[in-house]
Amino acid sequence: MLAPSLKSCLRFRQSILIATPLHNILVRTMSYRSERDTFGTIDVPADKYYGAQTARSLQNFPIGGETERMPIQIIRAFGYLKTAAAEANREYGLDGKLADAIIQAAQEVSQGKLDNHFPLVTWQTGSGTQTNMNVNEVISNRAIELLGGKLGSKTPIHPNDHVNKSQSSNDTFPTAMHIAVAKEVHDSLLPGVEKLLASITSKREEFKSIIKVGRTHAQDATPLTLGQVFSGYETQLRNGIARIKSTLPRLYELAIGGTAVGTGLNTYEGFAEKVTSKVAQLTSIPFKTATNKFEAMAAHDALVEVHGSMNVVACSVMKIANDIRFLASGPRCGIGELIIPANEPGSSIMPGKVNPTQCEAITMVAAQVMGNHTAVTIGGSNGHFELNVFKPMMVRNVLHSARILGDACACFSTNCVEGIQANHERIKDLLDKSLMLVTALNTHIGYDKASEIAKKAFADGTTLKEAAISLGHLTDEQFDAWVNPEKMIGPTKYA
Amino acid sequence: MLAPSLKSCLRFRQSILIATPLHNILVRTMSYRSERDTFGTIDVPADKYYGAQTARSLQNFPIGGETERMPIQIIRAFGYLKTAAAEANREYGLDGKLADAIIQAAQEVSQGKLDNHFPLVTWQTGSGTQTNMNVNEVISNRAIELLGGKLGSKTPIHPNDHVNKSQSSNDTFPTAMHIAVAKEVHDSLLPGVEKLLASITSKREEFKSIIKVGRTHAQDATPLTLGQVFSGYETQLRNGIARIKSTLPRLYELAIGGTAVGTGLNTYEGFAEKVTSKVAQLTSIPFKTATNKFEAMAAHDALVEVHGSMNVVACSVMKIANDIRFLASGPRCGIGELIIPANEPGSSIMPGKVNPTQCEAITMVAAQVMGNHTAVTIGGSNGHFELNVFKPMMVRNVLHSARILGDACACFSTNCVEGIQANHERIKDLLDKSLMLVTALNTHIGYDKASEIAKKAFADGTTLKEAAISLGHLTDEQFDAWVNPEKMIGPTKYA
Amino acid sequence: MLAPSLKSCLRFRQSILIATPLHNILVRTMSYRSERDTFGTIDVPADKYYGAQTARSLQNFPIGGETERMPIQIIRAFGYLKTAAAEANREYGLDGKLADAIIQAAQEVSQGKLDNHFPLVTWQTGSGTQTNMNVNEVISNRAIELLGGKLGSKTPIHPNDHVNKSQSSNDTFPTAMHIAVAKEVHDSLLPGVEKLLASITSKREEFKSIIKVGRTHAQDATPLTLGQVFSGYETQLRNGIARIKSTLPRLYELAIGGTAVGTGLNTYEGFAEKVTSKVAQLTSIPFKTATNKFEAMAAHDALVEVHGSMNVVACSVMKIANDIRFLASGPRCGIGELIIPANEPGSSIMPGKVNPTQCEAITMVAAQVMGNHTAVTIGGSNGHFELNVFKPMMVRNVLHSARILGDACACFSTNCVEGIQANHERIKDLLDKSLMLVTALNTHIGYDKASEIAKKAFADGTTLKEAAISLGHLTDEQFDAWVNPEKMIGPTKYA
Amino acid sequence: MLAPSLKSCLRFRQSILIATPLHNILVRTMSYRSERDTFGTIDVPADKYYGAQTARSLQNFPIGGETERMPIQIIRAFGYLKTAAAEANREYGLDGKLADAIIQAAQEVSQGKLDNHFPLVTWQTGSGTQTNMNVNEVISNRAIELLGGKLGSKTPIHPNDHVNKSQSSNDTFPTAMHIAVAKEVHDSLLPGVEKLLASITSKREEFKSIIKVGRTHAQDATPLTLGQVFSGYETQLRNGIARIKSTLPRLYELAIGGTAVGTGLNTYEGFAEKVTSKVAQLTSIPFKTATNKFEAMAAHDALVEVHGSMNVVACSVMKIANDIRFLASGPRCGIGELIIPANEPGSSIMPGKVNPTQCEAITMVAAQVMGNHTAVTIGGSNGHFELNVFKPMMVRNVLHSARILGDACACFSTNCVEGIQANHERIKDLLDKSLMLVTALNTHIGYDKASEIAKKAFADGTTLKEAAISLGHLTDEQFDAWVNPEKMIGPTKYA
Repeated sequence: MLAPSLKSCLRFRQSILIATPLHNILVRTMSYRSERDTFGTIDVPADKYYGAQTARSLQNFPIGGETERMPIQIIRAFGYLKTAAAEANREYGLDGKLADAIIQAAQEVSQGKLDNHFPLVTWQTGSGTQTNMNVNEVISNRAIELLGGKLGSKTPIHPNDHVNKSQSSNDTFPTAMHIAVAKEVHDSLLPGVEKLLASITSKREEFKSIIKVGRTHAQDATPLTLGQVFSGYETQLRNGIARIKSTLPRLYELAIGGTAVGTGLNTYEGFAEKVTSKVAQLTSIPFKTATNKFEAMAAHDALVEVHGSMNVVACSVMKIANDIRFLASGPRCGIGELIIPANEPGSSIMPGKVNPTQCEAITMVAAQVMGNHTAVTIGGSNGHFELNVFKPMMVRNVLHSARILGDACACFSTNCVEGIQANHERIKDLLDKSLMLVTALNTHIGYDKASEIAKKAFADGTTLKEAAISLGHLTDEQFDAWVNPEKMIGPTKYA
Repeated sequence: MLAPSLKSCLRFRQSILIATPLHNILVRTMSYRSERDTFGTIDVPADKYYGAQTARSLQNFPIGGETERMPIQIIRAFGYLKTAAAEANREYGLDGKLADAIIQAAQEVSQGKLDNHFPLVTWQTGSGTQTNMNVNEVISNRAIELLGGKLGSKTPIHPNDHVNKSQSSNDTFPTAMHIAVAKEVHDSLLPGVEKLLASITSKREEFKSIIKVGRTHAQDATPLTLGQVFSGYETQLRNGIARIKSTLPRLYELAIGGTAVGTGLNTYEGFAEKVTSKVAQLTSIPFKTATNKFEAMAAHDALVEVHGSMNVVACSVMKIANDIRFLASGPRCGIGELIIPANEPGSSIMPGKVNPTQCEAITMVAAQVMGNHTAVTIGGSNGHFELNVFKPMMVRNVLHSARILGDACACFSTNCVEGIQANHERIKDLLDKSLMLVTALNTHIGYDKASEIAKKAFADGTTLKEAAISLGHLTDEQFDAWVNPEKMIGPTKYA
Repeated sequence: MLAPSLKSCLRFRQSILIATPLHNILVRTMSYRSERDTFGTIDVPADKYYGAQTARSLQNFPIGGETERMPIQIIRAFGYLKTAAAEANREYGLDGKLADAIIQAAQEVSQGKLDNHFPLVTWQTGSGTQTNMNVNEVISNRAIELLGGKLGSKTPIHPNDHVNKSQSSNDTFPTAMHIAVAKEVHDSLLPGVEKLLASITSKREEFKSIIKVGRTHAQDATPLTLGQVFSGYETQLRNGIARIKSTLPRLYELAIGGTAVGTGLNTYEGFAEKVTSKVAQLTSIPFKTATNKFEAMAAHDALVEVHGSMNVVACSVMKIANDIRFLASGPRCGIGELIIPANEPGSSIMPGKVNPTQCEAITMVAAQVMGNHTAVTIGGSNGHFELNVFKPMMVRNVLHSARILGDACACFSTNCVEGIQANHERIKDLLDKSLMLVTALNTHIGYDKASEIAKKAFADGTTLKEAAISLGHLTDEQFDAWVNPEKMIGPTKYA
Repeated sequence: MLAPSLKSCLRFRQSILIATPLHNILVRTMSYRSERDTFGTIDVPADKYYGAQTARSLQNFPIGGETERMPIQIIRAFGYLKTAAAEANREYGLDGKLADAIIQAAQEVSQGKLDNHFPLVTWQTGSGTQTNMNVNEVISNRAIELLGGKLGSKTPIHPNDHVNKSQSSNDTFPTAMHIAVAKEVHDSLLPGVEKLLASITSKREEFKSIIKVGRTHAQDATPLTLGQVFSGYETQLRNGIARIKSTLPRLYELAIGGTAVGTGLNTYEGFAEKVTSKVAQLTSIPFKTATNKFEAMAAHDALVEVHGSMNVVACSVMKIANDIRFLASGPRCGIGELIIPANEPGSSIMPGKVNPTQCEAITMVAAQVMGNHTAVTIGGSNGHFELNVFKPMMVRNVLHSARILGDACACFSTNCVEGIQANHERIKDLLDKSLMLVTALNTHIGYDKASEIAKKAFADGTTLKEAAISLGHLTDEQFDAWVNPEKMIGPTKYA
């Protein structure tokens, strides 16, 4: 009979294999080989490079399904790191042939060729040790294979003694975290926000001469141009990019070289710098060795900080997308000043409906990012002594946010913002009706009289001019001279 | 020279005394008496009942100003508790004369007569020990005074041996937390939500026959009555009250009797039950002794739970108030289906502006409650071993939320909801324009043709009927028979 | 040339196909068929049942990769719902042959046989319309296939007119949300928490006679039994289950029957009740029709509430797991009172290290749940008018939390709690040293003298007894009679 | 009979007046004068400078008690702003005599002399309009008084036309927010964190030669110096200061000059720059006019960003204070490597107990800051159109966090960190026992054999050396040469 945890584990792994009417996948009879670690031997699938510690983790942590896997970006980042470490180790005496094999295998990891060999979930040990060992085992076995050896023999390449040489999970995992996050920031987040900035900027220019009613407290207010509205969004995003970038110096610091507790025990002087410099070269990101390795392992303030910048961008896009959906509300019973692209049928029951679905996707992403921020904050505050053990959870959330926020910005830009059109007729109609043009009278007749005019016009359902004149506060000519939306969209020149 | 912490402390305390042009407060020359605790003697103001440990805490925790005081509700709750404990202690042998004096002093605390004698801030020891001692000292000195003794003499009533008899901060403080929160829930939170429910219910009835356009995705949708809209709010609030009440059984459990670590060391069998029963009697709230005293001190899940129910209510009122502000947006350039009361001038620059200020106040409160919820959650998750030491922070946030959420609901009800009127003309105008009435055609001509009609009407700027007929999908008579808002606000009877 | 959004989409979908050295998957040349919706025609892969609207969503929402898919539990829940709806529709006149085919296809969905045909991500329209249409399209095409028809022909079974008959995304999606969450609560969450409760309860019994030093403020305190410590955990979990269950009545309410805005337009009277009753039967969960359909679509307070109960459980397990890891700290330089199972090698660099990895996994899960709670809260507060459009994000987080929290509790129970042993020797050694046994003297010689004894013993490094006697506060015999840990673990009988 | 809202209001205001046995405050019979605004007349207390709009807000927003007042820092910031605005207005034609009177009154506001005249709560209109008007009214009446006029006459100084000239609540309130927060950051937050950094740095130096056991996963690990531990904290705080400072450029941008919607209607060109420059001069903070006034009013990303930096610092101090409390746990049954100052009696029941109360205060503050961060984030994401109306709530939380975090850091530094001592004996004792010294053997005999030694020593309860030799893996001399803690605290020089 199978032990409960093993059964759970199998249940989990079997969920990967799904038979479907159209896509019947032939499930091969699984064969196994025996691997060993300091706890003894354990069977692993014959077609996987991973070894005993990975297999043990699979048994011990049946938490969630496939979606809970350690983010693949972490695995790829480990590929760069192990490549760099092997190169450095060669300089410190590691046999060249072994180093070459490790490097080739590690490159396959960084290139995503071995993604299927990393089955572990995020919810494992909080140091990510099991994923570090998963990487060590896969590289060791793949390198052994390259050298014609026997999988699982640990000869001639031992996962700990060679692949993990001069390293510890405690410095490699946080190093991989920073590499993975920095890459995601550069590959997804910044390009996404920049793309959105570009389309918003372009619309700001396009809309610069369209005067519309302003709205404060969701109530009619004094006029401004639609371009001015978009200039606010532009500033938010421009600042957002600056905010993200201002956090990068601390993200670029790598823990590698700290080994078990930050001291660098079992490494050589210079190892940290050599590895870091090679990682920087491989990734084209200016990583540098961490100022303080103790901090780099015991705390992850840098990740909380990076996520904090995404939290601000989430607030920005929530605001922008909310504005756009309300300004585009209608088509006939809302505000209707903007026309957004119709990308798909909006409703399964209401024919002809067009919905602001891109606004909805990005605001959902924003809410998720804010939630992830709480998780990252809690994880970041919970380090104890020489090691924060909320690492996998923290990096999962940071990578998640960077990816979906970047993608959502790009998607929102392409599928919504670029296609936004101003509804000129509706904008003009509303502007002409607005009572808040009365504000222009303050400097001529005082706040109290201006207020009287607005209230009368509202109560009587008349125009401002009619109310103004009937109250005798000013003449027809004065009204026309003073109440002119085109003069209300900026400060006055002082004579 | 003063030590830094003492100076900070004085700076903090002096901030209480403020001279103003109209309200010159005569600052008396302070005189002091000497009090002692196990750390030695320390000066305390002669006109205060508190003693050495309170004075020490004032020196040691100069964090924030007056607004950071331990919530006064906790002090009053301690008054009930110490009254009840003294009564129980008398039954277990405490001298009657001493007990009477303690009881009188404790009652003065519960009645708010001694509020000025509790200067400590929330940001003290996480067990609230210093506030428990503040209470013990005040009651001890006030009782000594009542018996004609000398303040600070601890004779004949010792703060620890008599006032705190059979108690520990570790059981009294969580007991006071539950008493204070339960009272605030009954005094502020529930009455506030119930008041809002009543006014919403009344409006639901008032608006039951007004058919209006629905809005999904902020876009025009099929019609419903305004009463139906308000019935949704009503259900939210009704459920909210049920949610709050469903958490009360665990809130009613009191830790008293657990003393230092939950075992009840230094109490007598039956003490817990006697004190609890007296507290229940004094407060008219059905408190009972905690099922498990270890849990009641080491964790505060009950507070996280209560706050969780307020978090849901915060979501509800955020939704309701947002709806109301957008439905009342305008007066001329928004949706304008509702008219909300104008309680004050809306703008310092825009004359005649009326803003949904009550919606703004309550949505700000909702956001604060959600933030407080994160703080309470973090505090609740951080207990260690036999004692959670985030007690003062947790209870501060729970009391804060209960008070402002309750008050905001009452205020929103009185100053906004009760005065809401439907703008019949506007509602009818929008309903008549709506394209989504087309949905009624689905069951007659199918989704695809119905969609074609809606799209044509929108593109051509015509009515649905015009588009329908011009497309030849149905006759004039069929249209009138099938597209009737009054038949669209409920399911059809199956023939 | 491909349009940018289509390229993004393909990049995303291609990421599914990964070639690896051991697992070369033969990528078939893709063939396509043409499907159409009200927006026109679009190519879909020939081997997929989904249609135009799904294909459009794939193009329009390239946000995140595979891990961002709409949770599969939602798809399965839709399977139940569409089965039930077709059965009800047959009663209201839907052709029996069509109904049978729809039912068979819908059952395949609920059984997970068609999982591969649901490629959409969470970050789509906030009503989940596209997933509802994905389901409608898959069922329609699969049913057409069963009836020998042509995929994409919509004949004889139309995705909207037949599969979605009497339904709207606006009522089906929230219905699927409640079904999916209720199932996950019953399948993962409750069994997990109950399993953990059982193992904790068993340890409480096992440890009931082991007296140990207590700890408050992380400092030595008066003694208690290890069983008492675990009884606190037991109460937390027992209450946690009660908390979860207390939220279920509102979770069991289904929105189906409300259609577009809650009114039930285009359904028949009784439809809601019939469908709900069939869903209840299919799932063996006592669902009932929502009291108020407007609330059930416009707000998701019920999900915020359910998640709030998980948030409390997260606090509980964070506390419990933290205690266990600190009590098991060592082996030689920590507290070391507990021995936890060694499930795997603990370190890649420190040989022989055993780490509390199960505590780490579950505390990471707890932090994630707390973060998810913020996301759910924000989504829940952001409904507007007749529809909350944060639905997919909200349900994703609720399902995520329920699954990983349930799994983590089960895993923690099996792989940690069940194997916990008390380190009797260490526990006794620490208890004997503890100075806080002095507390037993309070009732005999008063707090101040007891304090003097403890301070002297600490300063001199002696035992309490030595200090007590040397101070002359009591005799050797008195000490032995009064200071007895076995008498310190409960209240005294009053004589 | 009083209307309900007025009664609530009075109940709230009466709560200010408390009679106590020692401090009987003579409550004067209140007299009133009549003030008017565009809504009509209303009574205000004769001894207050505020006017009709303030009185109306008091009636309309009876939410919370005194602790809910608009933060006094906002009032003071308004004092600077109104001073600067009057100076600028004089340059644009405001009568010099009026300007002088306004300036004097405004200076009294900034100096705190009129604090008692600002009774409004945070939970008012979300634009802070009522507080802007409160300021306008107080300055107007005080300036009228200075010029010998009649309070409430609005002559010769009108609150809107003169005091608020060229301004709107919509630009003044966010300007006051930035001024107040920048001042609090400079006055409380940065000095507090810097003070803590200084004491940690000093301890890092003091402890640099003390070698101790490391702890990862809360389990024994390889050694490091206590100075290295503190160097990690030092880096966290040093980075924290950099993080806070990196957000200041955007905080220094002031909205003034934008008036109602950001356009600057009713101001003169150059007004924004002049006012900003005067504010900078008055506060000695390098404020500059906002790059984009639309963004500065419609969004408050800058506040979310500043608070994000405090959120990181909160994580840092939570980590540091947790470490210190656990390292100082004991005195006999914990880790006991650090000795922290005993500032007060620790327990009301356990004599002689010393608790890490300073750690508790600062960790509670950290949790509060994290909670406030959620509130600020939600507020920041909820702006609509031209105005974010969560302003008072947002600034309240930012100011709260800045103040209590700064104060808590200073307090923790003075009352805990400065007095920390290393317990040399205990540290040495634990180091000598540690099994993780075995790690030094990895590079000599390999991970697997090293692991064998550690496991044997643990199982047998022997020293590592005994186990190593009995296993025959190395000689006595080799052990002594290789296992030397002093060589384990840094990397090796590569030969």
